[in-house]
Order: sequence, then structure tokens, then C-alpha cells
Amino acid sequence: MSTEPAPFLEALARDGARVEAMLERLLADRALPGEAVRPTRLVAAMRHATLGGGKRLRPFLLIEAARLFGRDDEGVLRAAAALEMVHCYSLVHDDLPQMDDDDLRRGMPTVHRAFDEATAILAGDALLTLAFDTTADPATHADASVRIDLVLRLARASGLGGMVGGQMLDLTAEGRWSVDGRPSVLGDAEIRRLQAMKTGALLRFPLEAGAIMAGASPQDVARLGRFGAIVGLAFQIADDLLDVEATPEAMGKATGKDAARGKGTLVSLHGVAAMKAELARSIVAAEAELSPFGERAARLVEAARFVAERRN
Amino acid sequence: MSTEPAPFLEALARDGARVEAMLERLLADRALPGEAVRPTRLVAAMRHATLGGGKRLRPFLLIEAARLFGRDDEGVLRAAAALEMVHCYSLVHDDLPQMDDDDLRRGMPTVHRAFDEATAILAGDALLTLAFDTTADPATHADASVRIDLVLRLARASGLGGMVGGQMLDLTAEGRWSVDGRPSVLGDAEIRRLQAMKTGALLRFPLEAGAIMAGASPQDVARLGRFGAIVGLAFQIADDLLDVEATPEAMGKATGKDAARGKGTLVSLHGVAAMKAELARSIVAAEAELSPFGERAARLVEAARFVAERRN
Repeated sequence: MSTEPAPFLEALARDGARVEAMLERLLADRALPGEAVRPTRLVAAMRHATLGGGKRLRPFLLIEAARLFGRDDEGVLRAAAALEMVHCYSLVHDDLPQMDDDDLRRGMPTVHRAFDEATAILAGDALLTLAFDTTADPATHADASVRIDLVLRLARASGLGGMVGGQMLDLTAEGRWSVDGRPSVLGDAEIRRLQAMKTGALLRFPLEAGAIMAGASPQDVARLGRFGAIVGLAFQIADDLLDVEATPEAMGKATGKDAARGKGTLVSLHGVAAMKAELARSIVAAEAELSPFGERAARLVEAARFVAERRN
Repeated sequence: MSTEPAPFLEALARDGARVEAMLERLLADRALPGEAVRPTRLVAAMRHATLGGGKRLRPFLLIEAARLFGRDDEGVLRAAAALEMVHCYSLVHDDLPQMDDDDLRRGMPTVHRAFDEATAILAGDALLTLAFDTTADPATHADASVRIDLVLRLARASGLGGMVGGQMLDLTAEGRWSVDGRPSVLGDAEIRRLQAMKTGALLRFPLEAGAIMAGASPQDVARLGRFGAIVGLAFQIADDLLDVEATPEAMGKATGKDAARGKGTLVSLHGVAAMKAELARSIVAAEAELSPFGERAARLVEAARFVAERRN
């Protein structure tokens, strides 16, 4: 029997290694031109937060979206690495004791455990800023109007109307600031909106960004965006199912936390069976969205399937 | 006797009011187009952090630099407000118990005291992100290459090689992570480098940014940048002198903190008299830098003087 990994997992690992190499370059422990000095401890914390772990799913989606329209160069890798920095900064801040209070991430101590809280706060700030720096740099794309479009979309996906706003809604729903300290009872639409902001926006962004970098038409960018929205929803449903069904060992982090916090998810609202059915339907919808591209989009369709069926 | 404020203070207050109005618009408690919802508590914390206080010195420098080259429009105000968001986010994070642990800012409770630490962390994150959003928005400048230049410079001034890196060097110098917990003994060059990163970069940025927005030549942008570097140094020397000489009442925040922490400043290294003399020389140098513009640059020269001579 063959023990070869499936071609999709091979591709994911291959692009992941390229993203890792780019992150390594961007976070090298030496000052870049224009910098007087890189504070050693801060750089070490930023490296701890970003290097040596993670599926690099968001960068993969960006790289594959650009490839679909014929672009695959160093600039794409830079944009992908910048996006991963935003994702990693959000994990560093979310893991803080004041927020989700997590000690483990990818089976390793979180940044504030490996370093300290002040360093974790600043490392997150510096990663977010470096993400915009990297995206805005001419080395990422020759066309200034493309770069500014990416910056604007990245800011919207990760800010008040996106990821950070979604995290705030999530903490609010947990009952953190309610008079009686009890979680809110959220309805279907509220949960979907919260999740679209908290995790969806940053999964949709790479699909649009890759298409934009490769010069896709506005119609195709919009199509990739719709595909990204479906992937984002599928990701979140799968995540909520894993929180119910997976072990901490498989996840490399604590599970069962949603229920422990009384946190409303689509799974707690509609049940495991109903959400597994919606997850299956979402794969069909994702595939339909990319059908105009035929076989060329096979890898992105596989990515959607991977997101829905992942076990950690 | 007249009690009219000096024309410079009038101009500072007038531009400050315009920046306040722009911040109010950008932080209105209603979702902007493209946002599903603005989390109420998060927006309230962002407003607490930015509205109703501060001299708005950085925005003023940006507005006056653009005016020097004939531009004074809403886009300039947007860029100025975005810069102020970066400044305010840095104060919110620096005030946290894990960092400088301050309860008062501009005579008001700091964000984590008025709200809580999780909200303060997220409000800072959202302000930084909204600053890039605002700068990258076409409403700020019609030319994409100008906007991307601003984004790149803003990221460099505020990130690892600028403000955040400088704050990290500052905490390190306080001895926070030294084996014996004692502050480092920094030399003249190290203190200047640290301060150029921590406070200088974000005072230099507005002078370059204003000139760039108004279409100034690269030579003039560089000249304004040199002027900005002098203003940054003057600001820091004045700040260190105030920490020694001013009262908490005049400052609206604690004073005497540098000495209490054993923190090396140019004032502790060279003495009050020597640094007052350098401050006076810096005003002369600043004035000389802008002499090619004659009377048109009078307001910026007054700004440099104001920075050096301020009492709070």
C-alpha cells in the first residue's frame, strides 16, 4: 500500500514551505534598509508567532487564486506572507490572558507564555504593521493601484468591520460585559454575521487578492470572492464541529471550549447532523461557483473540500 | 491687556477642531458601507481613545506641510486623522498594565480603566487598522501611487523599525528583561536612536506625507523630512525636560517617571542646561532647513518653536 500523501496535501505542504521561506526572509533577525535596529526580543517573538507551524491555509488560497489566472511569482508569495502575518498577529492577541487566555497554540507555548504579555502585545502590533508594509512595498506588485487595492481590502477584512470587530462581538456574546455575566442567545443570522466578520473576511480576502494580483476581471474577482465567502462559512462550521468532536491532542489546542463558555454556534443551534449536511451542501455550492474555470480550478475546489473535511 | 491667544495657538486649535470633526465622522457609531455592524463597545472605546483631547500636533504638521505646497482639502484632513489614530492606538497599548501601566491620559481615565483590558487591546488593533484603511481610501487622494507611498511610509514609521520597535527598546532599556532587573546604561547614540524610532518617526512622517500629498518635489519632501527629524528630536528633549520639571497637574499625566524607573535620557546623561542649549540650537537648525520657503513656512517654524517651548 502506498503511503504517499494525496496530491492536494502535497501542494499545500509545498506552498506552505515557500510561504515559510518568505516569512523567514521578511522576519530575518537583521535590520532591513531604512531600519536603525531590530529589537532582538521583539523579532524573536514575531518569529515564534509566525514560523514553524500552521497549515498556511490563507496564503495557499491566495497563491492558488493568483495561479488560476496565470500569476505565480515572488510578489504573490510576499502578499501571501503578509496575510499570514495578520492571521498570526490576531492569534497572538486573542491568546492573551485578557482575551481567550490560551497557553498552547499549534502544540507550542503561546507568545505571552514563551515571552511575556508586553512583548506579545507589541509583537502583534508589529506583525500587523509589517503586513501592511509588505503589501504596500513595490516588490509585491509593480502596479501601485493593485497594491493600494490589496491594502484597502486587507484593512477592511481585518479591522472594525471584519476580524477585530468579529472578535469583539464574540467576546460580547460570551457575556463578558453583560449585567449578569451570562452569554447572549444569538440567532442564526447573528451567528453567521459574527462569524463572517471574525473568520470569514480573512478567508475571503486571499481569493480576491490573488485574482486581483493576476489581473482577473472584476467579474472573476467577485466570483472568487463568493467562493471565498462559502469557504469561510465552511471553515467556521467545520471548526465548531471539531470543537464538539475532536480531541485536544488532534487539535494541538483545547477543545470543548464553546460549550464550556455557553457560546452559541450554528452547531449548538441546529445540531451536528444539520450542520454536517449544510457543510456538504456548501462544498457543492463552492464547486458550482468555480465551474466556469473547469479543471483549472480543481485545486481550489479541493481546498474547499479540505477545509470542510479537515480533522484538525 | 488682550487675552487673545497667539495666532499660532489659534491656528493649532482651528486645525485641531477640523481633525476632531474628521475623526468624529470616521468613528461615527454606525456601520459604514461594506460593514455589517459596528460593535458598540469597541467603537465607544475607539472614540474614547481619540476624541476630545490632545493637541493634535502630528495632524497639524501634516496639514501645514501640505499647505506649504498649496494643498488644503478633505483628503489631507483624512490623512491627518489617520495619523492621529496611529498615535492614539499606541497610547492605548502603551498605557496597559503590561506596558507602562498608566491610569490617566489627558486628565481622563485611560481606555483600559474606562473600559477593560481586552477592549483596550482590540480598540488599539482596530484603530491601527482603520488608519491604514483611511489612508488607502481613494477619498484621501486621487492618485493611487501617492496613497501607497503614504501607506508604506506610515507602516515603516509606526512598525518594527519605528514606533513599536522603539517602544520595545525602551522597555528593554528599563531593565524589564535583564537578568538583574536593572536598567541598561545607554550612551548618547543609543538614546538618540531609540527616541528617533519611538517618537521621532511619527513626527517626521506628517511633514513628508503632507508634502507628498501636495505634489512637492522629492528634494522638498526630503527637506521637510529633515525638518521633521529635528522637530522629533526637539519634541523628545522637551518631553524629557518636562518629565523632570513639570507637575502632573500641568501634564495631565504622571511625571518624574523617567528617574523613578532609572531610565536614561539625554537630560539625565548631559544635564538640564546642556539639553536646553541643544533645544535652542535645534530651533535655529529647523528654521534654517525651511529658509528656502521664506515667510510661507513661518507657521511650521512656529510649530517647531512650540514643540521646544511647550509647558505640557
